[in-house]
Amino acid sequence: MTYTVIAAQFTNHYYKTFDEAREQLRSLYRPHSMLTFESTAVCGEDNILQTTHRIGKVVHTIVTFDAQPCGNDGRILVMVTGHMVIDGSEHPQGFSECFQLIPENGTYYILNDIFKLVYPA
Amino acid sequence: MTYTVIAAQFTNHYYKTFDEAREQLRSLYRPHSMLTFESTAVCGEDNILQTTHRIGKVVHTIVTFDAQPCGNDGRILVMVTGHMVIDGSEHPQGFSECFQLIPENGTYYILNDIFKLVYPA
Repeated sequence: MTYTVIAAQFTNHYYKTFDEAREQLRSLYRPHSMLTFESTAVCGEDNILQTTHRIGKVVHTIVTFDAQPCGNDGRILVMVTGHMVIDGSEHPQGFSECFQLIPENGTYYILNDIFKLVYPA
Repeated sequence: MTYTVIAAQFTNHYYKTFDEAREQLRSLYRPHSMLTFESTAVCGEDNILQTTHRIGKVVHTIVTFDAQPCGNDGRILVMVTGHMVIDGSEHPQGFSECFQLIPENGTYYILNDIFKLVYPA
């Protein structure tokens, strides 16, 4: 599979899991994985899951995703932009999120995850 | 210097150079560097510089930047959000951009660069 196909599959899987079965995101992270959520940085599956669990019910809509290989060892950088509805709000919120994916035993885990809400200019 | 300080210095330098002396961005890229600009991907300094030169006069305003180390070899992931005014337009445009920086001889170059305009939800 090309990195573009992997990035597409990852992106669809990640946001579907976030919206429908958030606890299962745990398998995508490792003890050294990092999440920066709205400029608060945490490390490790437990802290990352706790952070995502504080957010309330979310429905993500992916608008764009772009991917690049990071050198020759199979790592992939993915940047996603989209909208999200939190707790049924009438006002969707723009977001941007980037991930670095690391290959491991035929699959990928998330080493880096930076999430930002994006406000109109 | 911590990765946060390096990311701050890089971010300020990058956008100041983009706005005031864009040709000098060349020194930040290498032949294997990648730029994905609004989903069009190019590789190498020449193609990257040609892409940035097509954009017209820009004034960037940085709103947020976040950084994470990428493993133990000094690489740094940076995600920036902000606004930009293109060719003196009255309508600032939101953007999001992520970079992977690679250490080299006491400085850093850009391996990965993904840029997206972000529209209101």
